[in-house]
Amino acid sequence: MAFSASLFYPSPNLSSTKMPPSPLLFRRPSSVSLPVRCSSAAASSSFDLRTYWTTLISQIEEALDAAVPVRYPESIHKAIRHVVLSPGAKRAPPIMCIASCELVGGLRSAAFPAACALEMVHAASLVHDDLPCMDASPLRRGHPSAHALFGVDMAILAGDALFPLAYQHIVTHTPSPDPVPLSIIPLVLTEIARAVGSTGMAAGQFLDLSGAAAGSEKEILQVLEKKFGEMAECSAVCGGLLGGASDQELEALRRYGRAVGVLYQLVDDVLMESNGGTGKMRSNASIVKAVGMDRSLELVEEVRAKAKKELDKFKDKYGEKVLPLYSFVDYAIERGFVVEGRGLEASSAAGASVGSSETFSKGD
Amino acid sequence: MAFSASLFYPSPNLSSTKMPPSPLLFRRPSSVSLPVRCSSAAASSSFDLRTYWTTLISQIEEALDAAVPVRYPESIHKAIRHVVLSPGAKRAPPIMCIASCELVGGLRSAAFPAACALEMVHAASLVHDDLPCMDASPLRRGHPSAHALFGVDMAILAGDALFPLAYQHIVTHTPSPDPVPLSIIPLVLTEIARAVGSTGMAAGQFLDLSGAAAGSEKEILQVLEKKFGEMAECSAVCGGLLGGASDQELEALRRYGRAVGVLYQLVDDVLMESNGGTGKMRSNASIVKAVGMDRSLELVEEVRAKAKKELDKFKDKYGEKVLPLYSFVDYAIERGFVVEGRGLEASSAAGASVGSSETFSKGD
Repeated sequence: MAFSASLFYPSPNLSSTKMPPSPLLFRRPSSVSLPVRCSSAAASSSFDLRTYWTTLISQIEEALDAAVPVRYPESIHKAIRHVVLSPGAKRAPPIMCIASCELVGGLRSAAFPAACALEMVHAASLVHDDLPCMDASPLRRGHPSAHALFGVDMAILAGDALFPLAYQHIVTHTPSPDPVPLSIIPLVLTEIARAVGSTGMAAGQFLDLSGAAAGSEKEILQVLEKKFGEMAECSAVCGGLLGGASDQELEALRRYGRAVGVLYQLVDDVLMESNGGTGKMRSNASIVKAVGMDRSLELVEEVRAKAKKELDKFKDKYGEKVLPLYSFVDYAIERGFVVEGRGLEASSAAGASVGSSETFSKGD
Repeated sequence: MAFSASLFYPSPNLSSTKMPPSPLLFRRPSSVSLPVRCSSAAASSSFDLRTYWTTLISQIEEALDAAVPVRYPESIHKAIRHVVLSPGAKRAPPIMCIASCELVGGLRSAAFPAACALEMVHAASLVHDDLPCMDASPLRRGHPSAHALFGVDMAILAGDALFPLAYQHIVTHTPSPDPVPLSIIPLVLTEIARAVGSTGMAAGQFLDLSGAAAGSEKEILQVLEKKFGEMAECSAVCGGLLGGASDQELEALRRYGRAVGVLYQLVDDVLMESNGGTGKMRSNASIVKAVGMDRSLELVEEVRAKAKKELDKFKDKYGEKVLPLYSFVDYAIERGFVVEGRGLEASSAAGASVGSSETFSKGD
């Protein structure tokens, strides 16, 4: 599959008006590039999201491979490696973290260990979400879930081991006190703890299991915010912290990240329903089922506008450095190319995931 | 139940010789105090372990109660409170942490948040160990396990939420930079991560599940070290770190803690077998079943001697401050009184746990 095209960016002002959604929204993603010309000041420069993303995926997977070696006892480490290094992952949390760090002028090396740790935490939450007593997903990205391959006990243990491994990875690998001041690392750890904890992703999973999926628009959006928005929010905030963002900038990154996490899930839902609703997992909140397609598309536009509004605050100070984060917003809608990691099983990954509409969050 | 007696301490030298085990070892613990007179230099002062322990339990449970309030979403927080505040817990990890901090001259307030966090992590590991796919324990300390009361999904989520909550608690509550230097907190977090991770407690649970319980003496001791020694080791090391221990002192605390964690489990096993072997949970490694009672009693003495040998290194510098840690070793053997927290259900706790032989680790 050849990757060659670049993405251009629609105007933030444009996206905040009530426009009819792009017809591209209803296309299945393909390997064909989908350039979208527009009038934004930002669009005067082009930014190649695909190259940025795929290059980073390789670097992240290399670091993850080294971070979870097979050691004694072997079986649990093989399960952990399956969870972290399975093919098809988009590595969206680490990429969001690195892009946020680089936005505010931070070095990539400052954010890299936390970025990898975010992927470990992300993987840990997915392996527990997939369990038979949770979302009962026998597949993850077209491959057997960890519990299907290794048993429920091993899947629980692999998830349990990944949370502390992520914390350990940040403490032992983040370059500190230079360029990352010593005081920043506890803040990063606390931010991750907040996101995955009982008022964050665990709350999202609880609300999803307890029937909120059949609830009102507000209830479903709350599930999406907790279950999917938290990871993206946390990734953006950690990147900002490690890059030296101000408090005000961190709050903007927080709102941006949360919006992007929700946006990907909303669009996934719209795409799923517009393609016949197949492949939806048990007890996932569906906004389209709850409020219909028209209102869902309005919500997509509202959340996209919200995310871009937060980024506009960075334009004056950081100029083109804001482009990667803009591009995540547009990619949520356009899905102009397929991006995914090779994991440990490159050949099977390539075959299994062409045409997948899932990018951030649940499906990632 | 009245608590009045104090404990005295046998000579460290005495305990390192191959003595026949105390006949008290085979008594069921009771509420009657069992003073043991001895000739140690340390015994010139008496130390009231029971008062020390029970006073700390109250303080720890008060702090835990405040640390895990019921908030939205309520059900998951109720499950978390059940896990953390169930009656009958001995709070051994936090007490080991505080005693180790105080040994090296640290303030109790320096260790207290980490002590509470250790209990959260401990509780999280127990709730996952109890699951039907793990040790399948419907009861914990004579009360229904979390999964029996709240369902397997809620029990997994409660455990998942407790790990990050523990990290968050340390970062937000530890008094820093004074008296705890900023650089110490990441070391404490890393130590906990190491202990609970894939080469620590998760490895112990894996080895236990994968049949090591039917293995050789070496294999069973490895399960005990991973599954039970890690928590005590980590508690002692965290206390030392927060109290300002030197590297050499930390290593002695590490070996001491690991030995104590194994010792309690060995003695529990001996007591269980000498009382007819009732109440043993599925797939727990039993040293008595593997190597017989005589060799098990030798091992008890060896591990006790090992723990005390490490403590001897502190005597010259810290004098009587070493007494609490000595007393934990002797209590493992003597079980001269019953100590346990009241949790949230004081009345039912008092009735359910009289006569329980379990103290540290698995049963705690």
